Amino acid sequence: MSSSPPSRGRPRDPRSHEAIIDATAKLVVEVGYAATSIGAVAARAGVGKDTIYRRWPGKPELVFEAVFTTTDDAPAPDTGTLAGDLTVMLQGLVDEFHAPAAAAALPGLLADFAADPELRARIRGDFLAPSKDRLLVVFERAATRGEIAAETPVDLVLDTLAGAVFFHVGLVGERPDRQLAATLAAVVAKGIEVR
Amino acid sequence: MSSSPPSRGRPRDPRSHEAIIDATAKLVVEVGYAATSIGAVAARAGVGKDTIYRRWPGKPELVFEAVFTTTDDAPAPDTGTLAGDLTVMLQGLVDEFHAPAAAAALPGLLADFAADPELRARIRGDFLAPSKDRLLVVFERAATRGEIAAETPVDLVLDTLAGAVFFHVGLVGERPDRQLAATLAAVVAKGIEVR
Repeated sequence: MSSSPPSRGRPRDPRSHEAIIDATAKLVVEVGYAATSIGAVAARAGVGKDTIYRRWPGKPELVFEAVFTTTDDAPAPDTGTLAGDLTVMLQGLVDEFHAPAAAAALPGLLADFAADPELRARIRGDFLAPSKDRLLVVFERAATRGEIAAETPVDLVLDTLAGAVFFHVGLVGERPDRQLAATLAAVVAKGIEVR
Repeated sequence: MSSSPPSRGRPRDPRSHEAIIDATAKLVVEVGYAATSIGAVAARAGVGKDTIYRRWPGKPELVFEAVFTTTDDAPAPDTGTLAGDLTVMLQGLVDEFHAPAAAAALPGLLADFAADPELRARIRGDFLAPSKDRLLVVFERAATRGEIAAETPVDLVLDTLAGAVFFHVGLVGERPDRQLAATLAAVVAKGIEVR
């Protein structure tokens, strides 16, 4: 984004960014993924379609950001233990997958992901990058405390955490019990600890 | 199945069952999920459509069985350690998700799963039951050896294993390295061990 030229028109308005994200999340719940068009989002957010297309390549990216990156801007948790930090991150994932917007967006989003090799190739790079960055901070602190080895495979752990929540809450549709995040965090933390 | 009355027609022919499963897996790879109709499967397998509908409620169930239950009939692994047994089970999952049939079936299958609440409700009961049975045998042996506590949550561990492989191989599309199953098995086994 930062490398794109500051071309036509006014500088970006953070309020319009938030209005677009907000309109997208609400529209998906109200009318479903299929009917959530860029045009409908633009109308709801009070912006032009080109404003949206300047920031997002298409609907999947926009919906993904609106539904599944709600905790990405939060600083990495720092509870003092690896299990505690993973619990905080997992609780964010559980909340996202359990929210009405996730249930509304997931079918269409998954179909688009799975059917589009280019989109698929961008999952790791674009969609998962902020989560990976937060997990790397958590891992660095855990390594400094001596809880894990420096070479703990961050991508695999990230996929394990996200996959477990996705499968348990998103796909199988289990109602997440209040201990889900803590239980999963305890298992994974113990599994990668050096002791 | 065994509780249904032995009604109209001949007894079931295991060869036709295998021919149907085989035709389904091949058709999905050749023409994709959308074009894999019950009629096309019937023609390819040399059976009538009603033969298929007597055994499977519809296409998603048939495709799921053809693509994702290839190891369900194998006995539960018995390598002598929990990590070893989980490695064998995970390698089966990795192989399934990495096979061409999975790549071909996953988009449509996920869309059908996610869009159909009834189908979704059957995932745990019908689709995951054989895997859960095998994992329960593995867990019983591990508990007898003192590796894990008797109350280890089998559903959550199953979702963690399946979700990790699904996310890593199926969704993100990482080419699974040869150590993937063993690495994941080691993490999860260590994470649920009593020590």
